[in-house]
Amino acid sequence: MSFNTFGRVFRFTTWGESHGPALGAVVDGCPPGLSLSEAEIQPWLDKRRPGQSRYTTQRQEPDRVRILSGVFEGRTTGTPISLMIENVDQRSKDYSEVAKAYRPGHADYAYDAKYGFRDYRGGGRSSARETAARVAAGGVARLVISEVSIRAYLVELGGDSIDRAGFDDAEIDRNPFFCPDAAAAARWAVLLDEARKNGSSLGAIVECVATGVPAGWGAPLYAKLDSELAAAMMSINAVKGVEIGDGFAAARLRGEDNADPMQPGNDGKPVFLANHAGGVAGGIATGQPVVVRIALKPTSSILTPVETITRDGDPSEIKTKGRHDPCVGIRAAPVAEAMMALVLADQKLLHRAQTGRG
Amino acid sequence: MSFNTFGRVFRFTTWGESHGPALGAVVDGCPPGLSLSEAEIQPWLDKRRPGQSRYTTQRQEPDRVRILSGVFEGRTTGTPISLMIENVDQRSKDYSEVAKAYRPGHADYAYDAKYGFRDYRGGGRSSARETAARVAAGGVARLVISEVSIRAYLVELGGDSIDRAGFDDAEIDRNPFFCPDAAAAARWAVLLDEARKNGSSLGAIVECVATGVPAGWGAPLYAKLDSELAAAMMSINAVKGVEIGDGFAAARLRGEDNADPMQPGNDGKPVFLANHAGGVAGGIATGQPVVVRIALKPTSSILTPVETITRDGDPSEIKTKGRHDPCVGIRAAPVAEAMMALVLADQKLLHRAQTGRG
Amino acid sequence: MSFNTFGRVFRFTTWGESHGPALGAVVDGCPPGLSLSEAEIQPWLDKRRPGQSRYTTQRQEPDRVRILSGVFEGRTTGTPISLMIENVDQRSKDYSEVAKAYRPGHADYAYDAKYGFRDYRGGGRSSARETAARVAAGGVARLVISEVSIRAYLVELGGDSIDRAGFDDAEIDRNPFFCPDAAAAARWAVLLDEARKNGSSLGAIVECVATGVPAGWGAPLYAKLDSELAAAMMSINAVKGVEIGDGFAAARLRGEDNADPMQPGNDGKPVFLANHAGGVAGGIATGQPVVVRIALKPTSSILTPVETITRDGDPSEIKTKGRHDPCVGIRAAPVAEAMMALVLADQKLLHRAQTGRG
Amino acid sequence: MSFNTFGRVFRFTTWGESHGPALGAVVDGCPPGLSLSEAEIQPWLDKRRPGQSRYTTQRQEPDRVRILSGVFEGRTTGTPISLMIENVDQRSKDYSEVAKAYRPGHADYAYDAKYGFRDYRGGGRSSARETAARVAAGGVARLVISEVSIRAYLVELGGDSIDRAGFDDAEIDRNPFFCPDAAAAARWAVLLDEARKNGSSLGAIVECVATGVPAGWGAPLYAKLDSELAAAMMSINAVKGVEIGDGFAAARLRGEDNADPMQPGNDGKPVFLANHAGGVAGGIATGQPVVVRIALKPTSSILTPVETITRDGDPSEIKTKGRHDPCVGIRAAPVAEAMMALVLADQKLLHRAQTGRG
Repeated sequence: MSFNTFGRVFRFTTWGESHGPALGAVVDGCPPGLSLSEAEIQPWLDKRRPGQSRYTTQRQEPDRVRILSGVFEGRTTGTPISLMIENVDQRSKDYSEVAKAYRPGHADYAYDAKYGFRDYRGGGRSSARETAARVAAGGVARLVISEVSIRAYLVELGGDSIDRAGFDDAEIDRNPFFCPDAAAAARWAVLLDEARKNGSSLGAIVECVATGVPAGWGAPLYAKLDSELAAAMMSINAVKGVEIGDGFAAARLRGEDNADPMQPGNDGKPVFLANHAGGVAGGIATGQPVVVRIALKPTSSILTPVETITRDGDPSEIKTKGRHDPCVGIRAAPVAEAMMALVLADQKLLHRAQTGRG
Repeated sequence: MSFNTFGRVFRFTTWGESHGPALGAVVDGCPPGLSLSEAEIQPWLDKRRPGQSRYTTQRQEPDRVRILSGVFEGRTTGTPISLMIENVDQRSKDYSEVAKAYRPGHADYAYDAKYGFRDYRGGGRSSARETAARVAAGGVARLVISEVSIRAYLVELGGDSIDRAGFDDAEIDRNPFFCPDAAAAARWAVLLDEARKNGSSLGAIVECVATGVPAGWGAPLYAKLDSELAAAMMSINAVKGVEIGDGFAAARLRGEDNADPMQPGNDGKPVFLANHAGGVAGGIATGQPVVVRIALKPTSSILTPVETITRDGDPSEIKTKGRHDPCVGIRAAPVAEAMMALVLADQKLLHRAQTGRG
Repeated sequence: MSFNTFGRVFRFTTWGESHGPALGAVVDGCPPGLSLSEAEIQPWLDKRRPGQSRYTTQRQEPDRVRILSGVFEGRTTGTPISLMIENVDQRSKDYSEVAKAYRPGHADYAYDAKYGFRDYRGGGRSSARETAARVAAGGVARLVISEVSIRAYLVELGGDSIDRAGFDDAEIDRNPFFCPDAAAAARWAVLLDEARKNGSSLGAIVECVATGVPAGWGAPLYAKLDSELAAAMMSINAVKGVEIGDGFAAARLRGEDNADPMQPGNDGKPVFLANHAGGVAGGIATGQPVVVRIALKPTSSILTPVETITRDGDPSEIKTKGRHDPCVGIRAAPVAEAMMALVLADQKLLHRAQTGRG
Repeated sequence: MSFNTFGRVFRFTTWGESHGPALGAVVDGCPPGLSLSEAEIQPWLDKRRPGQSRYTTQRQEPDRVRILSGVFEGRTTGTPISLMIENVDQRSKDYSEVAKAYRPGHADYAYDAKYGFRDYRGGGRSSARETAARVAAGGVARLVISEVSIRAYLVELGGDSIDRAGFDDAEIDRNPFFCPDAAAAARWAVLLDEARKNGSSLGAIVECVATGVPAGWGAPLYAKLDSELAAAMMSINAVKGVEIGDGFAAARLRGEDNADPMQPGNDGKPVFLANHAGGVAGGIATGQPVVVRIALKPTSSILTPVETITRDGDPSEIKTKGRHDPCVGIRAAPVAEAMMALVLADQKLLHRAQTGRG
């Protein structure tokens, strides 16, 4: 069974394949009266759009979003918002090799095992191209949570970490890596050029932070804020790990070092002296920044040949030609932001459903 | 809004607080005709039961499960299975301190921020005691996926890792740490004794492996197998990170090193030469072992005093007395197994809903 | 797949069989801070309780409800509320006949066809005894919608209608039929005595009215208020028809006669000059009373022999002995009230999730 | 909160307004490998298409469906199927009157009360135009339940019933009323011409029958087959009543007359001697034809003036000009078929999820 809807009350459904005529999202449950036009969604898509540097795929897609429903006289009506993005650069390349043999690391074999056959053009439904629809939906979600600011950036690429001391928020949009550390960005350019030249690819770690999330959002026990974020992030192509706050490092701390001590604040809210928890306790937001990190594996589409089998079960070898991101982790940053926004919008509405507040 | 139901077609709902009269789970969507009695669930609860060594809480709970519905003449009927576990050792201690001040690292402040007040006795609903209900439900789930074997064990405690070379499956149940490496278990005993004596606590990393999962299970895109596992695992108390296969380490590999090459197998299925992916590609099982690791923070309940505030906003300091696990990661192992079973049972039924197979 | 959960944000899950040890409901999503004790739920159960007149089954069940979770110091905490009712009068009668042959009009054959076997004791899960759990859950729902008053009563029994001119709200609780017309109640007593004596049974029509529902509740398009009510009511045992407002009679009106004209009201809200619509337009409440009528077939358990087959496919004949309501429609009135309350509580929370109002 | 998704495992989401650029449906959970093209959906849309006789609205919409995803090389892939229908005849009429005043019987006031404002062009989201998307989705559902035949037809129009003795299946598509009785169709033409001429409208009763539904489909307790059908049918515009089998008439039968006696059949299945139950017992299909009837109110858009109020609360009067069906019940027949198909497809997949059969 495929489940292409995410969310509980603020929900979105995506559809579309890499090489079909279009892809899109239907956003349901959006509050009425929000100011919305295509111009408010497009900038987010532009951040994710391919072909903007030599470090992403050269497929040329304008990724123009169209709003087909749910908006009247510039405002959301409370009815489903249908968003569509046409595919314009589905290059008519020869897919016979991919059709016949399974690309290791890709979903080719798994889709065949599940469905009996697959749309092999550009990965079909399993292509990261689908994330454009999420980013569009995320643009709507942001309107719902105007009290929140969301920022995602790479903290590691190819095993090379940023220097937190050199963290500069303004730098993030100045380099093609969403990297907050200019020195690291310079090193990454070299790393990635080398990988590309050698037909290889690199992984990355993306950090996504939401500030302004009010204490109280979250829906224990099985729609905990961190649980929903984990699901949302792990559903992004190539993500293999998710951590909240200190994450895996917390497993190496002692109890007293992992505590986030509290002091009285001026506005009746506590001042936390640390944020090991990443803004979530018991599945509920504490009011601190919500901090998530995700690990992205290196792109599976590489020019280095890998041993594989054909659909008929014969031994083979495959090199994945075509236009690919040498590091899918880069364009995952705007996607992570979108997923954060989508989860938080849902949690906000759930919170006010139950408590009548917010 | 609280969401205490997990799953899509095979679903369970849990209820109950740490110090209420009982807790339980309602399992819905279970196939009919499966042989089920309390004797088949009890052993899983016994593995999680507290008070079995000095490394877990000394609260004495027999955790006897009762089946109240859904079974007739020893077989599941296809109707909801109600499982109940009575609380018998809710020690009538003085909770006035916890009632008044927030324990850092706990959900105390967040619950108050969300609900306006909270059941402070033993953490109420946010207590890990709730996981007993999950383990009971997991016992039912295991019957649904009899083709699958699930095993969870600690691979790290207090920052000290096992030696994979010394991995011995049989060792896991021989020590109080679910540790597959006897030498590590011996070291952990020392570490944990020291932490307890000093009023501190330690974190851990649990690995959970499911073998026998058929290729094809998984429900892209937003109920991907790995996404559901991430949600399930992150919902366990104290979990701060989840990774599939190589997880965060995959972000440091090159594309060719992260590939899982395939060769033809004898039974028409591929033989994979590696399992960096942890058994999941594109959200669908590949037929390899499904490998998940979770990071658990050190227990927040410690005797070391931590700075905090009272409900009235005054500065304070708190030491959490009472009976606590010095490392919650230990008893998380049987809980992780249960969540793995629950996710896989759901995915199995989803898979056959859509494909008619299995 | 069984789905024993109803609702979207305010949700309840029921479990239990007619002759199991207990039955119950888990209510999830309830707002925190509502005053709740068993004393507030019990009166609703008492209205539905069997054995209170010779016109209902003589099974003696005290139907005492216990709250097992979700309440602390007399108030709802926002966590799941587990409600349990023990079965105490599961008479150890001989079920061999029902085990062997299918009772026409009952779910016996259908359950066997679906599940391969069935719990035949008293109808198992398909017994109307399950509705006790709904009534308990409905007691919680009523707290959520304190602005609404709900009243259900019989308007027809055995084909004999009440006289609307003789409608007396106070009369409803004075006779064993929830009948608002004393004269009709007197006639029904005769009708039902005759039917009982002849081993027969009668059907009924129940009307349920909710006043005070604010304009705006409702969730188009597939969780429309009327659509949810139709699902809720049709799920009650023996219900074969549901209508809103004028219902089937509306199909015989002309457009101008079916219109509900509006005039300005004093409080900014319209005054409607009619309520053919039954308080719902486009799936959304208009602020008028919400009016639902349900048709209940005559009890299928009758002493008159009916032609049937055995599980082995042999021809047979069956008389359903035991303790049965000669008209299940009577005790359906408190159940209809509960379902109305449960639907409205859910819609209230959905409405405020999306609009932030209410 | 709006919920524009229907179904549990086979699910569809619709979007679009009467006067927006397009409307559509996303079908999720469809089994893979089914042969599907636009040519297989179009005929169902053509049956519902307006402007085919003088008894329906004269709005000219070709209702051409486009498949945008989920199909590859003529077969469903198991991924979401996006269906789009462009609106081409949104006449740029003057909506100022409708914008200002509420049309009684329409959702105008309710939408304003809920959302604060509304898309008043042609009823916006509350327009029956949305049912085109359901019919398209229903075309996909039919492929999933190829063992089932579904037929809907009018049994009453303007209070004038068909003669069951004159029932002729072949006649249904020969007249503009989906009427199985030629004599009744002739009378209805006169009735409806008269109503149109007088600026009035008429109601209707539609019966929808599904044959070939295997015993066992159905998901007790809150996704009972009849409960889901009630929800599905009540969500159709203008529907005010739903009944299964004998429906309201069953409330007037005695137990022995309402029984559906069984005899042994040749194929191991029972032969039922009656079908008062309409093919459903305990929420589960019995293998008999599933029979549903729905009552549709007369079209609310009439030329006869009706008393109303303006948005500002002033008294007013409104005549609804424009292009309207004088009896919305007619075109509801293909919509009812679609909803029946959609419910049954979902129930089929749910059944095999739980039982592994079918």
